[in-house]
Amino acid sequence: MKGTVMSGMRPTGRLHIGHLSVLHNWVRLQEEYRCFFVIVDWHALTTSFDETEGIKENVREMFLDWLSVGLDPGRSAIFVQSQVKEHAELHLLLSMVTPVSWLERCPTYKEQIAELGREGKDISTYGFLGYPLLMAADILVYRADTVPVGRDQLPHLELCREVARRFNYLYGVRLLPEPQALLSSVPVVPGIDGRKMSKSYHNYIGLTDSPEEIRSKVRMMITDPARIRKTDAGHPEVCTVFTYQGLFNPQEVPRIEDECRRGAIGCVACKALLAERLVEGLRPVWEKRQQLAARPDDLADMLEEGARRGRAAASQTMVAVREAMRILP
Amino acid sequence: MKGTVMSGMRPTGRLHIGHLSVLHNWVRLQEEYRCFFVIVDWHALTTSFDETEGIKENVREMFLDWLSVGLDPGRSAIFVQSQVKEHAELHLLLSMVTPVSWLERCPTYKEQIAELGREGKDISTYGFLGYPLLMAADILVYRADTVPVGRDQLPHLELCREVARRFNYLYGVRLLPEPQALLSSVPVVPGIDGRKMSKSYHNYIGLTDSPEEIRSKVRMMITDPARIRKTDAGHPEVCTVFTYQGLFNPQEVPRIEDECRRGAIGCVACKALLAERLVEGLRPVWEKRQQLAARPDDLADMLEEGARRGRAAASQTMVAVREAMRILP
Repeated sequence: MKGTVMSGMRPTGRLHIGHLSVLHNWVRLQEEYRCFFVIVDWHALTTSFDETEGIKENVREMFLDWLSVGLDPGRSAIFVQSQVKEHAELHLLLSMVTPVSWLERCPTYKEQIAELGREGKDISTYGFLGYPLLMAADILVYRADTVPVGRDQLPHLELCREVARRFNYLYGVRLLPEPQALLSSVPVVPGIDGRKMSKSYHNYIGLTDSPEEIRSKVRMMITDPARIRKTDAGHPEVCTVFTYQGLFNPQEVPRIEDECRRGAIGCVACKALLAERLVEGLRPVWEKRQQLAARPDDLADMLEEGARRGRAAASQTMVAVREAMRILP
Repeated sequence: MKGTVMSGMRPTGRLHIGHLSVLHNWVRLQEEYRCFFVIVDWHALTTSFDETEGIKENVREMFLDWLSVGLDPGRSAIFVQSQVKEHAELHLLLSMVTPVSWLERCPTYKEQIAELGREGKDISTYGFLGYPLLMAADILVYRADTVPVGRDQLPHLELCREVARRFNYLYGVRLLPEPQALLSSVPVVPGIDGRKMSKSYHNYIGLTDSPEEIRSKVRMMITDPARIRKTDAGHPEVCTVFTYQGLFNPQEVPRIEDECRRGAIGCVACKALLAERLVEGLRPVWEKRQQLAARPDDLADMLEEGARRGRAAASQTMVAVREAMRILP
């Protein structure tokens, strides 16, 4: 094993095909790292404390999605954050050594408060201010040394390293590793309207959309607006369907590009081809999902077993943390 | 039982006779309330995160002191905060619904940062900002309705009520009671130099000082500076020894006041009398303390049994809190 990986997702809604590349990356990491994949439900509360109805269902669906794309509970510890209370204890202990200014300086802090403020939502809570520290606790409680992240998460990982460094310095130990980012070149999947794929824009293709929904959404996708007739020369570089072909149908891209530029393939045919490739690609995920969903007791057992493995690792860290801080065991 | 009481002390040092009236008040409360008395070691970290060497010993000594003055582990739940992890979980959950401005507005926040700043110590941490919220969690996790406090703690209790109210409102429940202050007229015991009694001023009489130390400290006490000879008329209203006589020797106060004003009792005799009263008053505490200290295993068992009772009550609250927030049980 190359090291220990920790990563997580907030169960704030259903996954869409934009999440696939991150998950495929996790599936690969399982081969080489000891992995902790965590459904971070406490984090969902930072922005959704006033609309918590869906959290339990989102947790269940996320677990199903993760297993369906290939995360392996026999190999990785896969569980829900709130089932491992050590995250809360370490968060509290680290809060004592973390200057509040480090959190105020996180670039996402004021940005997100302003962004949600425009939607009329006030998230300037103590919990929201502290969420990068909760993320640090999530990572450090497993003494993970490797964290797969996107560029936007680098400031949070930098904070995590600073907190680990300060803890080790204050208590004269080398207990908490400074985790390194594993920057994966995760391609961005645009929404069907070309904007960022987002639940609130209603422009996403869900992981569990039916073939009919997928075909219908693909038909609505924006192509080259200058192309009126199908014999007009197309401009793939401005076409969202072409971006998707590159992501989900790479083998046929050279042919499609050539035919599009020559006006030899129309947008309708191009979209039909893409939709079938998407459906083909997702079918094994749906089939696995259906098999898993039929065994709810097994799913609950798997989650509990994952939490047990999480607790086993986290409680070892906490014993060492309390000892380093010279507080009661 | 009239209700549920929660109160605590931070194990930042040894207790002195200034703490006695608070403890005697707790001892009385045991008769009428279901009580949780908590040694709040996590709170000690807010100001002492960089000097934690003494915490474990302070915890042990504080527990001994509490039992020696009459707190009864057969009647009250007496334990250490860090042994009941539910405090940390509730603190985290409440942080999601608590505006950071409520904490910034706490009068102690900027005051204490400035005060410790003058001593060259920086406590502007996320944990220190959140300590009134941790206090709220300490109270609410036992659904305590009554909190014995001094006037200086009223803003913290007001915050606790606001947080309980907001939680109940957001989740449509009547789960967390809004605790009321039980303002006891706790007399302030001045230090032997007439200033505030404080460890850092070295002007305190410790609960476990020896009779010799007590006599020596009382001899150093400040009396009426205008009184040169023992036959001069004294002014009890400016004399720290007289304040002590009122607190620890109330029966003899009328006689002492009369004799002092007439120059019939000198300061040396007056101090000797006070010292003997203090020693007499503390002797039963020392004796009980010695008996208890000889049974370290029993003490450990009592603390563990107290924590078990704390956890039993706290975990019930947490089940209801998670259900109200509609998150995983």
